[in-house]
Amino acid sequence: MEIAIVLFDGFTGLDAIGPYEVLSRVPDATVTFVASTPGLVRADTGRLAVQVDVALADLPAPQVLLVPGGPGQVAAMTDQVLIDWVRAAHRTSTWTTSVCTGSMILAAAGVLDGRRATSHWLALDRLPEFGAEQTLERVVFDGKVVTAAGVSAGIDMALRLAAFIAGDEVAQGIQLMLEYDPQPPFDAGSPTKAPDAIVAKLRSRSRFLRSG
Amino acid sequence: MEIAIVLFDGFTGLDAIGPYEVLSRVPDATVTFVASTPGLVRADTGRLAVQVDVALADLPAPQVLLVPGGPGQVAAMTDQVLIDWVRAAHRTSTWTTSVCTGSMILAAAGVLDGRRATSHWLALDRLPEFGAEQTLERVVFDGKVVTAAGVSAGIDMALRLAAFIAGDEVAQGIQLMLEYDPQPPFDAGSPTKAPDAIVAKLRSRSRFLRSG
Repeated sequence: MEIAIVLFDGFTGLDAIGPYEVLSRVPDATVTFVASTPGLVRADTGRLAVQVDVALADLPAPQVLLVPGGPGQVAAMTDQVLIDWVRAAHRTSTWTTSVCTGSMILAAAGVLDGRRATSHWLALDRLPEFGAEQTLERVVFDGKVVTAAGVSAGIDMALRLAAFIAGDEVAQGIQLMLEYDPQPPFDAGSPTKAPDAIVAKLRSRSRFLRSG
Repeated sequence: MEIAIVLFDGFTGLDAIGPYEVLSRVPDATVTFVASTPGLVRADTGRLAVQVDVALADLPAPQVLLVPGGPGQVAAMTDQVLIDWVRAAHRTSTWTTSVCTGSMILAAAGVLDGRRATSHWLALDRLPEFGAEQTLERVVFDGKVVTAAGVSAGIDMALRLAAFIAGDEVAQGIQLMLEYDPQPPFDAGSPTKAPDAIVAKLRSRSRFLRSG
């Protein structure tokens, strides 16, 4: 099983590496990072660069495609090579997936038309502009299209995918190898749980997410 | 504040990228990936390569140093440049930290002598060989030395560090930006919670972790 993770400049590192870490451990699956142009792809912080050896054109029909988000998503939505690849790969995929604002890229490719989907909470209300039905769930399955909420939600999505692909026992084994027994020090991981002042502050700073 | 994340061939991607994603968002902090030899550093799967531009020698005294784990930790423990760097950097650090079997590298540098520490659950019982006191907690603070359990535990550790460095509100804001409201599909993330058969199967396969 070929699993392609699409990178682009300005992606958010954990959006991609969380699912990579889970899906790499699915038996008989190969995870490949792909990009419009092979070479170093730099994450949104400017402090992380991942080497991509495979062009989108060289992996046209993966069984699973996964699109991360990040501030670079705005530019990626206008990368016609990337959008055309997503649209074409989705036709033959078993699972078409995104993390965070990667769902905006799926939307730009028409993948979310008429589907329930999620995104980073700060970008969620833009999904209807692309014909999708927004929902504040952490992981949303709609047929073969699976979208995850912001950044860390990709780990939960990938474990659920691993269970669909290889069974619950395999997924539990992966969870145990990654010692994924989360104990966040605060209960502030969702806009419905974080203090109102912190939610408001992040909303006021988030205009970059809305410029796409 | 300089935060150095030490990479070596065979590191586990999420060990490093989880904390990177959290700590990059601490105000006035800079996260830098460092390695014995700059260049592409390949993760344990062989499918992820991170470009490292800064040699250990060029960042001798970060305020925070973080050592991830992974199968490559066995070879890293014999990399004298790396071990000497950890020992020296620890003398002047504010926080000396590890994720997963990265604690074995701290141990090899003498950092854990007489301290409480944790590691990946499959490697935990090796810590006493290095003079450390093992504990199956997810994140262990002992003075300025902080160790996290396997792989995903680095995210929880980094959020706690962010709170110490920049305050609870900043850490909560980071948690919200990363939408870290974990909802794992199974409760199998620790050897005390996973089904016995899965724990036993992973133990039987884990001899590589014990060869160092």
